[in-house]
Amino acid sequence: MGFHHVKKIPAITFFILSILSSLPAQAAVREYWIAAEKTPWNYAPSGKNLINPKDGLGVWGQSLIYTKYRYIGYTDGSYTTLLPQPEWMGILGPQLRAVVGDTLKIHFLNKTDQPLSMHPHGVMYDKDNEGADSGKGASVLPGKSYTYTWVVDKDAGPGPNDPSSIVWLYHSHVMSEDEMNLGLIGTIVVTREGKERSTSNPIPQDIDQEFTALFMIFNEENDEESGLKHAINGRIFGNLTGYETSIGERVRWHLVALGNEVDNHTIHWHGQTVLDHGRRTDVIEILPASMTSVDMIPRSSGDWLFHCHVNDHMMAGMSTRWQVQNKK
Amino acid sequence: MGFHHVKKIPAITFFILSILSSLPAQAAVREYWIAAEKTPWNYAPSGKNLINPKDGLGVWGQSLIYTKYRYIGYTDGSYTTLLPQPEWMGILGPQLRAVVGDTLKIHFLNKTDQPLSMHPHGVMYDKDNEGADSGKGASVLPGKSYTYTWVVDKDAGPGPNDPSSIVWLYHSHVMSEDEMNLGLIGTIVVTREGKERSTSNPIPQDIDQEFTALFMIFNEENDEESGLKHAINGRIFGNLTGYETSIGERVRWHLVALGNEVDNHTIHWHGQTVLDHGRRTDVIEILPASMTSVDMIPRSSGDWLFHCHVNDHMMAGMSTRWQVQNKK
Amino acid sequence: MGFHHVKKIPAITFFILSILSSLPAQAAVREYWIAAEKTPWNYAPSGKNLINPKDGLGVWGQSLIYTKYRYIGYTDGSYTTLLPQPEWMGILGPQLRAVVGDTLKIHFLNKTDQPLSMHPHGVMYDKDNEGADSGKGASVLPGKSYTYTWVVDKDAGPGPNDPSSIVWLYHSHVMSEDEMNLGLIGTIVVTREGKERSTSNPIPQDIDQEFTALFMIFNEENDEESGLKHAINGRIFGNLTGYETSIGERVRWHLVALGNEVDNHTIHWHGQTVLDHGRRTDVIEILPASMTSVDMIPRSSGDWLFHCHVNDHMMAGMSTRWQVQNKK
Repeated sequence: MGFHHVKKIPAITFFILSILSSLPAQAAVREYWIAAEKTPWNYAPSGKNLINPKDGLGVWGQSLIYTKYRYIGYTDGSYTTLLPQPEWMGILGPQLRAVVGDTLKIHFLNKTDQPLSMHPHGVMYDKDNEGADSGKGASVLPGKSYTYTWVVDKDAGPGPNDPSSIVWLYHSHVMSEDEMNLGLIGTIVVTREGKERSTSNPIPQDIDQEFTALFMIFNEENDEESGLKHAINGRIFGNLTGYETSIGERVRWHLVALGNEVDNHTIHWHGQTVLDHGRRTDVIEILPASMTSVDMIPRSSGDWLFHCHVNDHMMAGMSTRWQVQNKK
Repeated sequence: MGFHHVKKIPAITFFILSILSSLPAQAAVREYWIAAEKTPWNYAPSGKNLINPKDGLGVWGQSLIYTKYRYIGYTDGSYTTLLPQPEWMGILGPQLRAVVGDTLKIHFLNKTDQPLSMHPHGVMYDKDNEGADSGKGASVLPGKSYTYTWVVDKDAGPGPNDPSSIVWLYHSHVMSEDEMNLGLIGTIVVTREGKERSTSNPIPQDIDQEFTALFMIFNEENDEESGLKHAINGRIFGNLTGYETSIGERVRWHLVALGNEVDNHTIHWHGQTVLDHGRRTDVIEILPASMTSVDMIPRSSGDWLFHCHVNDHMMAGMSTRWQVQNKK
Repeated sequence: MGFHHVKKIPAITFFILSILSSLPAQAAVREYWIAAEKTPWNYAPSGKNLINPKDGLGVWGQSLIYTKYRYIGYTDGSYTTLLPQPEWMGILGPQLRAVVGDTLKIHFLNKTDQPLSMHPHGVMYDKDNEGADSGKGASVLPGKSYTYTWVVDKDAGPGPNDPSSIVWLYHSHVMSEDEMNLGLIGTIVVTREGKERSTSNPIPQDIDQEFTALFMIFNEENDEESGLKHAINGRIFGNLTGYETSIGERVRWHLVALGNEVDNHTIHWHGQTVLDHGRRTDVIEILPASMTSVDMIPRSSGDWLFHCHVNDHMMAGMSTRWQVQNKK
C-alpha cells in the first residue's frame, strides 16, 4: 500500500471546488506513475493445459507468445522501480485505489510507438482528463507523458446496494477497440468513505482479501480460431495462478470483461457461492465493459475450478483454479 | 403533456371492474391516437460520421435511407396534427405515459400495406387487447383501425426496488421479428401512484428530465454488413441529437433493446455514472427486449460520448453524444 | 413430496461437523436415487407447430427424435419405480429439494455407455462429492454407481434479496459441454430455513405453485441449423405443455439456461409481469448457467405465450404457452 504516493489535501485549487469542499478532511491525492510498454506476453507460460493435461492446448497452443502493449506501474517519476503486483493480476495494469473524496493523479508515460491514452470509468473528469474523444489527454504521443486528474466523487463510489468497494475499468481510448485488444487495460477500486482501513490504506476494513478477474477473448490473428485467446487476466488453460485463500476469509471478487459480441461470459466458481447485491449465486453474467464486485467466504478447502460456463469458452481454455486452504 | 387526452373516470363499465374499484379517485383514462405509416428513414441525416469525422461512415454509409414503418402519434382521431416529440426520440413511436391505476386507450390506425398490431409489455390486457397471437387486436388490416384498452395495474408499475417510473416496450406482433425490424417500436412509461406531478402530468415529481434510448441493430440488407445499422433510436455515428441536460438536473434514462443474437449491448456514458437499482455503474447491460430505468445527476459539463461498449458495435457507429451544460 | 426419502438427523458424523452443529434440530438428510439413461427424445411430440400451426416446423422439423441421455429419478435403490414428474419438466432430471441445513444424499447409477457424473451448483461439497474435475465422484463408469453427499449450508440458500427459495443447476461434468448437450441436466431448489411447509415438504409456505424453465439450444447435428433445437425444457414450437395456473395463485418461476455463445435468452411472458429481486419486468435476461427465481401472481386469464424474445430464437420455435384459468 505504500507504493503509490498519498498526499493530504490542505487547501486545493481545483476545477470542482464545490464538490471537494464538502469532503472530509482526510481526502487524499493519490499519485500513480504508469507507463505504456511493448512487451512479449505468454498466454500459457507453462506451455501446458493445466486443467486437463491430457487434452493439451489444442489449436490455441499453436502460438502462445505475442507482442502486447501493457500498462506498467512504477513507484515514482523515474519509471525505474516496478510497482509490485501479484501473479494473479496477469496482463492487467496496476490496480488503482481510492476512497470517495480522494483525487487520483495519474502520470502516464507512453513508451510505445503509437498514440495512446488512459480513459477511466466511473471517476469524475473534465474533457482534458477524459483520456478519450477530444481534449488534451485524448491522445498521448509516443515518448510523451501526460498527467490525468480524476476526482473520486460520491458518484464514483459504491451505490447504496453495492459492497464497501467497487471496481471500474480503465483502458486506452485513441483507437479504443484495438488498444483494449493490445492489452491496455487496468482497474480502479473505490472504497466507500469511512470504510477504508486508513488514509494510507484504502482497502476496506470489512474484507480480508481481494481478487480481480478480467474475462476477455483476445484476438491475435484476425479472427482465426488459433488466435482467439479465451483468457482470464490474459492467461488460458489454468495458467493464471495465485488465486489463493483460506476457509473463513472475507474475499471480494472484482469482475470485469471487455471485448466483442462473443464476450458474453458467465463466471463460475466451483466450491463456493457468492453474494451478488443480495442475490446468492455461483455464476455471474458479464458482457463487454461489465464491472461488478461480489463477496464470498470460502467454506470448503480444495483446488477448485474457476471458469466461464459458456461451452465454447470452456473448451477454448477460459478457466483456471482458485485454492482454498484450511483455516490459517 | 396536454397532447394526449385524459379523462377522469366517474363510473366505468370495464372488463376488470374488481381491480379498478380499488384504485384512487383520480385514476385516468389516457387516450392516444397512433397510426402506423410507411416513411423514409435516414440513419444519418447529416451524411457524416459526427463522432470521428475523419473515419467516415464506412460500409454503413453506402446507403442511408430506407423505407421504414413507424408508429406516428396524433393529437386526435382526425389523425392530422402530429404529437410533437423531441429530436432524440428518433425512430421511436410516441412515448405513452400513465400512472398506476390509469387505463390506456390506444386508437390504432393502420395506414400501411400490411397487417400490423400494437403489443404492449407490462400492462394488463385480455386476449382481444394483447395485440398478438390471437384475439381481435392481433392483426389490424391495412386501412383498418382498432382501439386497445390496457389497464395500468400495480403489476405494470415500478417494483419496490425500481425508481418512481419504469419503461415498457410496445411493438407490432403479427410477424413480430419482421415488424420490429421495420421500426414499429415505442415505449410506455409508468409512474408509481402518488409520484406523478398531477393527474394531467404523469411525469414523476422526483425527476427533472427523461431520456429514452433503444439500442438495436436494424437489418436492412439480409445480413449484409453494410445494411446492419447499429443504431441508437435509429441513428448511427452521432446522428442522434438532443440528449441535452445540465449539471445538477435529476435525469432518468429509460433503456431498451430489441433484435437478435448480436443485440447484446453495453450502454456506456462518458462523463457520469448512473444508479441502477442501488448499484453504481456507467455501463448497463441489455439484451433483446430488456427494459430498465436508471438515474443520474450530471456532475461535469461537456460534450460526452454515449455508446455501446461492444467493440464491433462501436466501430459500426452505435454511438452518439449527450451534452451537459453548466448549471442553468 | 413423499417421493424422496427424508431422515431426521439425530447425530451425524460428517466432514463438516462445525457447520451442521449450528443447524436447527429438524435438519434432514434427503435421499434421491437417480439413474443416467439413454432414451429417445422427441422435441415436438405433436409433430406440429402448436404456436403458429400454418408456419409448420420449418427446417427444425426435418428430424424430431434423437437419442438423449437423461437423469431419471426413482423412488428407491431398486431403480424400478419412477419418481413422478409433471409434463412441463420436459427433459429435465428430477427437481431436488432441500431446506437450508439439510443434507442431500444422491445415489447415482450410470446406466449408460459412457462415464458420467453429477456436478451440483450452489451446495457445499468436498472434492470427492464435486462430481467434476478430480475426486472419486468426478467420473462414474458405465454400470457403476456413486453416492454424492451435498451439504445445503447457508451459502447454498437464498441471499437477503432473494425470494424464499432459489434454484441451482446440476449437470454431468466429465466432458461437461458434451454431456449438457446430451440432456444431463436437472435443478435443485433450496428453501430458506423456516420457510418450508414442513420437514417432509420443503416447498415454501409463501408460494402456491412452482415452474422451472430451461432455455437452451441443443445442438444435434454439428451446428446444422436443422439440428439446432431452440428448446424450453427440451421442447420446441409449443410442445411443452402443463404450465397451468389460475388467477391469484402465488407462482414462482425458476429460470435457468445452459449452452453456448448463442444461448443468451430473454424470457418473456405475455399476460403478466414478474418481480425480479424487487424489479418489475416481463423479460428476464439469462446466459449459459444463469439461475434465477422470480415471482408472479397471475391477473388475467388466457392462453398466453411464453418465449425467448431474441428474434432468431422465436422463429426457431423457442416458445410455448402458459395457461391462466379464472380463480379456482
